[in-house]
Amino acid sequence: MRFAGILIVLSLSLCARAQSDKRISEHIRKNDHGILREFMQFLAIPNVAADTAGLQQTASFIMDLMRRNGIQQVQTLPAKTPGVPPAVYGEVLVPGATQTIVFYAHYDGQPVNAANWQKGLQPFVPQLAIGTPGPSLRLLDMPSPGTAIDPEWRIYARGASDDKAGVMAILKAYEMLRANQIRPSVNIKFFFEGEEEKGSDHLEETLDAHKALLKADLWVICDGPVHQSGRKVVGFGVRGDTQLEITVYGARKPLHSGHYGNWVPNPAMDLVQLLATMKDKEGKVTIDGFYDDVVPLSASEKQAIAAIPSVEGQMKTELGITRVESVKSLPETYSIPSLNINGIRSAETGKLAANVIPVKATVNLDLRLVAGNDWKRQQDKVIAHIQKQGYHITEQEPTDAERQQYAYIAQVTRSKGYNAQKTSMDLPEAKKVVAAVQSTTREKVVLIPSFGGSLPLYIFEKVLGAKTISVPIANHDNNQHAENENIRLRNLFEGIETMAAIMTMR
Amino acid sequence: MRFAGILIVLSLSLCARAQSDKRISEHIRKNDHGILREFMQFLAIPNVAADTAGLQQTASFIMDLMRRNGIQQVQTLPAKTPGVPPAVYGEVLVPGATQTIVFYAHYDGQPVNAANWQKGLQPFVPQLAIGTPGPSLRLLDMPSPGTAIDPEWRIYARGASDDKAGVMAILKAYEMLRANQIRPSVNIKFFFEGEEEKGSDHLEETLDAHKALLKADLWVICDGPVHQSGRKVVGFGVRGDTQLEITVYGARKPLHSGHYGNWVPNPAMDLVQLLATMKDKEGKVTIDGFYDDVVPLSASEKQAIAAIPSVEGQMKTELGITRVESVKSLPETYSIPSLNINGIRSAETGKLAANVIPVKATVNLDLRLVAGNDWKRQQDKVIAHIQKQGYHITEQEPTDAERQQYAYIAQVTRSKGYNAQKTSMDLPEAKKVVAAVQSTTREKVVLIPSFGGSLPLYIFEKVLGAKTISVPIANHDNNQHAENENIRLRNLFEGIETMAAIMTMR
Repeated sequence: MRFAGILIVLSLSLCARAQSDKRISEHIRKNDHGILREFMQFLAIPNVAADTAGLQQTASFIMDLMRRNGIQQVQTLPAKTPGVPPAVYGEVLVPGATQTIVFYAHYDGQPVNAANWQKGLQPFVPQLAIGTPGPSLRLLDMPSPGTAIDPEWRIYARGASDDKAGVMAILKAYEMLRANQIRPSVNIKFFFEGEEEKGSDHLEETLDAHKALLKADLWVICDGPVHQSGRKVVGFGVRGDTQLEITVYGARKPLHSGHYGNWVPNPAMDLVQLLATMKDKEGKVTIDGFYDDVVPLSASEKQAIAAIPSVEGQMKTELGITRVESVKSLPETYSIPSLNINGIRSAETGKLAANVIPVKATVNLDLRLVAGNDWKRQQDKVIAHIQKQGYHITEQEPTDAERQQYAYIAQVTRSKGYNAQKTSMDLPEAKKVVAAVQSTTREKVVLIPSFGGSLPLYIFEKVLGAKTISVPIANHDNNQHAENENIRLRNLFEGIETMAAIMTMR
Repeated sequence: MRFAGILIVLSLSLCARAQSDKRISEHIRKNDHGILREFMQFLAIPNVAADTAGLQQTASFIMDLMRRNGIQQVQTLPAKTPGVPPAVYGEVLVPGATQTIVFYAHYDGQPVNAANWQKGLQPFVPQLAIGTPGPSLRLLDMPSPGTAIDPEWRIYARGASDDKAGVMAILKAYEMLRANQIRPSVNIKFFFEGEEEKGSDHLEETLDAHKALLKADLWVICDGPVHQSGRKVVGFGVRGDTQLEITVYGARKPLHSGHYGNWVPNPAMDLVQLLATMKDKEGKVTIDGFYDDVVPLSASEKQAIAAIPSVEGQMKTELGITRVESVKSLPETYSIPSLNINGIRSAETGKLAANVIPVKATVNLDLRLVAGNDWKRQQDKVIAHIQKQGYHITEQEPTDAERQQYAYIAQVTRSKGYNAQKTSMDLPEAKKVVAAVQSTTREKVVLIPSFGGSLPLYIFEKVLGAKTISVPIANHDNNQHAENENIRLRNLFEGIETMAAIMTMR
């Protein structure tokens, strides 16, 4: 009985245009109040790594929604390691379909610091509004039934874009097909990860433990933003990612800046001096061998990059900047490894500032990796650079013995990480996905050999031998990974259409 | 009737040794439980600038204590500006005394961040303990009446050393003299400031408004620590002090480090690069003209500095460091201006770290000044240096127009500040104070031409034409201006003796 509803309408659906389907866009318009309400409920559930109960509730919400939509085999896929937020799985097997696509999104969100959100906005109290963060943002009440919903409205909440929108678009796409009795052209599997923002540390063992269930021809990854020009995007790769947290130490206790200032070493000044050696004025990382492992771009990739519409002028205006850090163009920077200061902290500034010599100073560095880089080797290069500046490296707070032995001590904590991944732009399934996405829009779809952002896509190839293609849906100005995260409703609605088109691709 | 008690014992006290008086030290020992209890009550009252009610309560506590000890004219001395925590005043006029000494301490404390205090310690829940902060610190219950009090015990609380200990030592010294019917040799005035840790912004107008009342031959300043060797100290000067807070700006909103990292400028990296230009590897400030205004030391000052016992080996061990920032000795650094990073902040580190490009990065700089420096001119030098690095300087958050016009923008907030002050080591009153302090100890008193720390002592000369001498009492390892501030009871008790000796100096 699994596909009774679908089988009945087989003859109908075969006559319909298989990809962009007017019935889907009309159905979305007719049901926009319901989609909005359901998505707001979803966003109200906390989904940060530190909140185990919140993540469980998020997974349960997804599974309820899947079961209500007749998706089969709904279950969590636990990792071997206990206590890891499990992936959520479900499937729709279509009689006669010869190909299987797994639709991937993740249900966990980046950590939040609610204090940084704009007045009126909170990470887990989803708020409808018009406009982008700032004084012109206007908060809106939920619309009364029957009134028009403006697709320019945004919902503000952690995960609104990254990546509960992905989960919602995929599930709503299938719900819309089912409601309109449109048969998918492929077997569909759903895989919603719960640990992506923590670095997907257990994704590999999860895939490995459920290999048979996850067998597929292609994974479609729904995460991240469309192009800044507003055009839809298909991406063939992602950068790898890892972090290093570095803490340098001064005196064992904080000291009065008058009595000891400029005699006792100041770890904030030491860290500043250290970090300043890592980059030149043109934004080039000056760490030995930092760019050495990079695999050069192919001709077709270079061509695709050259065809990406330039948005640099628009972006500078939008971001309030007149210069950029790199001499390269924005899409060109996606093809080289990066070193970014995520945050730096030593003692206090502002009202809490006191005249002290701090005891330590900490920086969190983000390293993005491209094809050819190995994340551990990339960490090693940074650590070797720190050593070259005279630092003793330790993995914990320095002991008294270390303090006596070494003039400069840096505690380095390696995050786990993963490497970059690319899929060939000439793969037949990839071309079908591009055609499906193109069928939903009059504007030329932007093809991106590798995104600047990261997902652990290499794992899919390593464990399952699976190819991956990224089809993001969020607005580019969604503030993902930061305060005031939001999704524009147009992006959510068009994202549902896009996913439905891929589910019926020919 | 004002001095009835004192006049009656005039004949007795004239026979007694006027300075270090065994009766005082014995009286302290006999009353140690009472002193401890009263001081703990005093420390339990919050005294940070942000807590107006707490500061009022602190001032009231002091005035109650003064009135109970028969001090006359007890009153607050308000500044002309409303809302400023007032100074607390009182006096004891001694018939026949030809000289007047004002005893100065301050009752406000540095800002607190309770989260940074060691487990078991809180800024305004004074805690008796043995040892210094760290795993070996042992918390103690209050001793039962009649049991011995170990002078090595410490009290942990904000203000324990800086500078409620000063207030307490001065008031208890007079209380002990009175209880033992010992007549002071000088007229005594008490002046307890309430705004020192905020930079004494209204001290000048306060002194100016109460000039007649504050007429005196000498001010004795009781603030700061004794020498690290444990020896008592008389200081003839202090450094000046001011701060600058500098914020540099990146994009208008936080951005994903994958999508924009190393293309959009990172303000944390910009700030790091900027700060790194301010100091060389030998700890020398590389800002143009930074050392230009410095008045060279006199021969006698050089001699005094050379006679200061070296504690550098001890300090390095105690602080867990093997190197120092400057090629100069610790007392030598007190004679040059300093530039210290009080704190630096941009986005988050640790568990709250996210993969973002921060929107801004802030540093709080402390500038200590020596004779010859002007605090505004010293700020100007730093600001000129920032401009020289290509920054546009603004006093508020950059406007859209500024963002469009300038590639590099730094918001600079100038704190108020004050200049250094020195009193001649050959002044007759200064020599009397040195002799009085020397009479209380067998070890040679350390004479310091200028402390590294700061007090707005120049104002006393400017407004009142008054000379100042510093007689600090706290242990050097008191963590003033930081978490886990403490006073060792021995220092409090000996401080009372020291103040009593000065009140009876000949």
